[in-house]
Amino acid sequence: MRGFYIGRFQPYHNGHHTVVEEIATEVDELVLGIGSAGDSHTDHDPFTAGERIMMITRAVREFERANDLVTYVVPIEDLNRNSVWVSHVQSMSPTFDVAYSNNPLVIQLFEEAGIEVRQSKMFDRERLEGSDIREAMIEGDAWRERVPDAVVETIEEVHGVQRIRTVAKDDVVERWEVGDEE
Amino acid sequence: MRGFYIGRFQPYHNGHHTVVEEIATEVDELVLGIGSAGDSHTDHDPFTAGERIMMITRAVREFERANDLVTYVVPIEDLNRNSVWVSHVQSMSPTFDVAYSNNPLVIQLFEEAGIEVRQSKMFDRERLEGSDIREAMIEGDAWRERVPDAVVETIEEVHGVQRIRTVAKDDVVERWEVGDEE
Amino acid sequence: MRGFYIGRFQPYHNGHHTVVEEIATEVDELVLGIGSAGDSHTDHDPFTAGERIMMITRAVREFERANDLVTYVVPIEDLNRNSVWVSHVQSMSPTFDVAYSNNPLVIQLFEEAGIEVRQSKMFDRERLEGSDIREAMIEGDAWRERVPDAVVETIEEVHGVQRIRTVAKDDVVERWEVGDEE
Amino acid sequence: MRGFYIGRFQPYHNGHHTVVEEIATEVDELVLGIGSAGDSHTDHDPFTAGERIMMITRAVREFERANDLVTYVVPIEDLNRNSVWVSHVQSMSPTFDVAYSNNPLVIQLFEEAGIEVRQSKMFDRERLEGSDIREAMIEGDAWRERVPDAVVETIEEVHGVQRIRTVAKDDVVERWEVGDEE
Amino acid sequence: MRGFYIGRFQPYHNGHHTVVEEIATEVDELVLGIGSAGDSHTDHDPFTAGERIMMITRAVREFERANDLVTYVVPIEDLNRNSVWVSHVQSMSPTFDVAYSNNPLVIQLFEEAGIEVRQSKMFDRERLEGSDIREAMIEGDAWRERVPDAVVETIEEVHGVQRIRTVAKDDVVERWEVGDEE
Amino acid sequence: MRGFYIGRFQPYHNGHHTVVEEIATEVDELVLGIGSAGDSHTDHDPFTAGERIMMITRAVREFERANDLVTYVVPIEDLNRNSVWVSHVQSMSPTFDVAYSNNPLVIQLFEEAGIEVRQSKMFDRERLEGSDIREAMIEGDAWRERVPDAVVETIEEVHGVQRIRTVAKDDVVERWEVGDEE
Repeated sequence: MRGFYIGRFQPYHNGHHTVVEEIATEVDELVLGIGSAGDSHTDHDPFTAGERIMMITRAVREFERANDLVTYVVPIEDLNRNSVWVSHVQSMSPTFDVAYSNNPLVIQLFEEAGIEVRQSKMFDRERLEGSDIREAMIEGDAWRERVPDAVVETIEEVHGVQRIRTVAKDDVVERWEVGDEE
Repeated sequence: MRGFYIGRFQPYHNGHHTVVEEIATEVDELVLGIGSAGDSHTDHDPFTAGERIMMITRAVREFERANDLVTYVVPIEDLNRNSVWVSHVQSMSPTFDVAYSNNPLVIQLFEEAGIEVRQSKMFDRERLEGSDIREAMIEGDAWRERVPDAVVETIEEVHGVQRIRTVAKDDVVERWEVGDEE
Repeated sequence: MRGFYIGRFQPYHNGHHTVVEEIATEVDELVLGIGSAGDSHTDHDPFTAGERIMMITRAVREFERANDLVTYVVPIEDLNRNSVWVSHVQSMSPTFDVAYSNNPLVIQLFEEAGIEVRQSKMFDRERLEGSDIREAMIEGDAWRERVPDAVVETIEEVHGVQRIRTVAKDDVVERWEVGDEE
Repeated sequence: MRGFYIGRFQPYHNGHHTVVEEIATEVDELVLGIGSAGDSHTDHDPFTAGERIMMITRAVREFERANDLVTYVVPIEDLNRNSVWVSHVQSMSPTFDVAYSNNPLVIQLFEEAGIEVRQSKMFDRERLEGSDIREAMIEGDAWRERVPDAVVETIEEVHGVQRIRTVAKDDVVERWEVGDEE
Repeated sequence: MRGFYIGRFQPYHNGHHTVVEEIATEVDELVLGIGSAGDSHTDHDPFTAGERIMMITRAVREFERANDLVTYVVPIEDLNRNSVWVSHVQSMSPTFDVAYSNNPLVIQLFEEAGIEVRQSKMFDRERLEGSDIREAMIEGDAWRERVPDAVVETIEEVHGVQRIRTVAKDDVVERWEVGDEE
Repeated sequence: MRGFYIGRFQPYHNGHHTVVEEIATEVDELVLGIGSAGDSHTDHDPFTAGERIMMITRAVREFERANDLVTYVVPIEDLNRNSVWVSHVQSMSPTFDVAYSNNPLVIQLFEEAGIEVRQSKMFDRERLEGSDIREAMIEGDAWRERVPDAVVETIEEVHGVQRIRTVAKDDVVERWEVGDEE
């Protein structure tokens, strides 16, 4: 059986990792869909799709070996149209039998399309982990122990902490956008 | 004479219905433009364009018979560029002689393009009706008597109340988007 | 039962009209989807969506009365992505039980999505009618008797023959595009 | 040497003008990139790209003569994808040797692409000038002495103050968008 | 009086230059709109918008001095929707009183919008000059004497001849596109 | 060292497979970029990105084991703008040191961006293999021995031969598009 698990993974952290470990007990193959793949260089979405592919591929390798899990890591760009989102995901991903999510919109869209969705309290507990970790990077607090080692490695390679700190500066006044020089 | 009346119609309610009845005394034909036609499945825009076409077509049928009014129901997708919005509307709609709106931006754009716009206190009174009705659906309060019967029928056919309740859950924490699993 | 019949309708002609008449014997309600709704002002797609809405709405009125057929005329903009086309159509249209088409791509896409498609030899016979009529307009040959009266009326209101002749001039050398001044 | 200075210029004001004067002492040629070129008719972005081209071209003429500075005024539409923004700018602009900006995101993107960025306290001081001037236009306060004469001229030609006042009305309740009739 | 003259300018050549000289006798100010501004690196559209801005700005400088002509050089990206093209151009350009074009589609669109268009036999004579010059670059034939000196300068700075020769290689078999590795 | 090899892979065939085997002798890790990821259901691009991910992932597994090669399979959607294509690829892919391609446009774009490109006669020999195989599927000729076993498996799972035959029917008259019912 093949499962589908989607997230923005900004960054991929221990919460995601535990979820993948749990899912690995239920499926033979797992597609990890990287949502909002085109977004990067903001404090909400600091990392590019390519960087997130690196993080995840390296991190899930341990489950591939330990659990004999086959994984696919697939970036999925936004189409900004909820009514075609399920079709878009299905065209970009290997076919799957079940989707894993606690996001209410994702659940609603999959269920209207007749696709089974499995939820877990586990997912929810990790709900705000991502923004906490990004905040810690910006503030200079500890974050390395909250993500798999492979993720630390990727973030350091791309100077990710320096990047998120720079682009987060605009928070002081109001949200800057490109061209927002006034 | 043909008039043009635009709204998001999320959903089409008694306020809209009264406005259409009023306009029907001034024009022979009326185009009802469904704005943001590509948006759906959010608490702000729960219904698809197709669902809104159903609501409106069924509801205005009574004016077609009673007032001998000819109506056109036309979904209009956003181009996200104000400077070409009037041209876009004109290309998607049968030609019209006068536009009805109390939306300041719509008024400004039509008037810069030399199109007559008629306003009415009536429109304004109904201004917040739409969000109130969506809120009532989410909270389990009464909403059925605030929309034409044909709209109740459509919303029930598509399980609209269940949908808006599910997608509105994300309000608890912060706005969820597709892929927002963290 | 509600049917869905899609075409570009450039313009809506007697071939389409016969097909609608045939479909009217099988369904209670019919959605006429106007494909490539955003295209206009070329020799392949001379008329805007708004102009095509006018043609069709006026022409099918006779079936509404004679056959007690309820019709919906719905412009559908291209998303240029076959894999989400069915979802897009479904979101823009009232729900339907069966689709009518002889276009192989449309048939394939609907059938992969599990939607019943009905074909008819009739459709095919009319296959090239549209381009023949456009050619006749350009060449000054007879075209009025090949479309319903309501379509003649709409085309004359918008000076459609003059328009298609002007934009077709570029065929002499090579295809012009906007900005193709060299 | 050629420099590149980007802003939204809504409108171009004395703060920008002082910055250009300062840059003029360092470069022979200067590209003024107009960001968010497709946005207009909102209280945040009232003026079209064409209107902003007029303002800037007229205003910088004095530096062209006094400092023998060659200027290029280039509208740049948003692609809404930070990772390709530098390439987009480079393709739309004459090549440049150095970029001028205090916007943290712009700085980060240019620096990741290996382009030299120069900052200045001057830029920052003028940071909020644009929104102050737009506020003054809306409130009926003095704004003419805060922009170059050529900018006053352009704004009056296009009835800019009336426009921003009309579209700003929607602030009273909530942000209106096109089609936001409810 | 201000005129508007649009072309793709791939490259700007002596034919364009003669047209501008002719227009300069009729107007005080001239906007040169660079069409298909987002296209580059093909044999049909080899040069970026930035490169074309350089060519034109440098070349028309002589008319600015000799004829006291004020010029604006404005890149205009395609929206791929004829029905809004005029509005798009108007929003990106300083306002203009008359358009100059021999392109039938451009003429039709401007005239439907009520804008005066002036044609000239001159324009037509130069009609195919652009593709001839690109062909000469690819084949190694003489092209330098067919464009203003300033254009030679720009093309050599960007190694334009090498570029067009490389990207034209795909003509041997069939049209390559990015990713067309098979 | 990490390499990048891009193709449309419609389908992934023995020619590609030999190229990957060759590249595997030069790099430790290889990114296989799936170009035109959003295209599907045409005779030129029959398979979705998800289907191509399945084909490639299964097929290259043998090199992963035999050559200890690490692979990444990354769908890349078209942005239709050559000037930002390299940045787009870089943002969607793990960083790479060298690109492999014989496509002249790809070579030109990477080289203008300062990225090393390696070519090989091998690539060229396989140049037309893809369209030959698609033709064989349509005509009912032998194709299974021209692709890796894993690709046969994927194509049969999705009924790929039936699909390409259906959508290719439109070739008889002229190219059909969605909505091309006339």
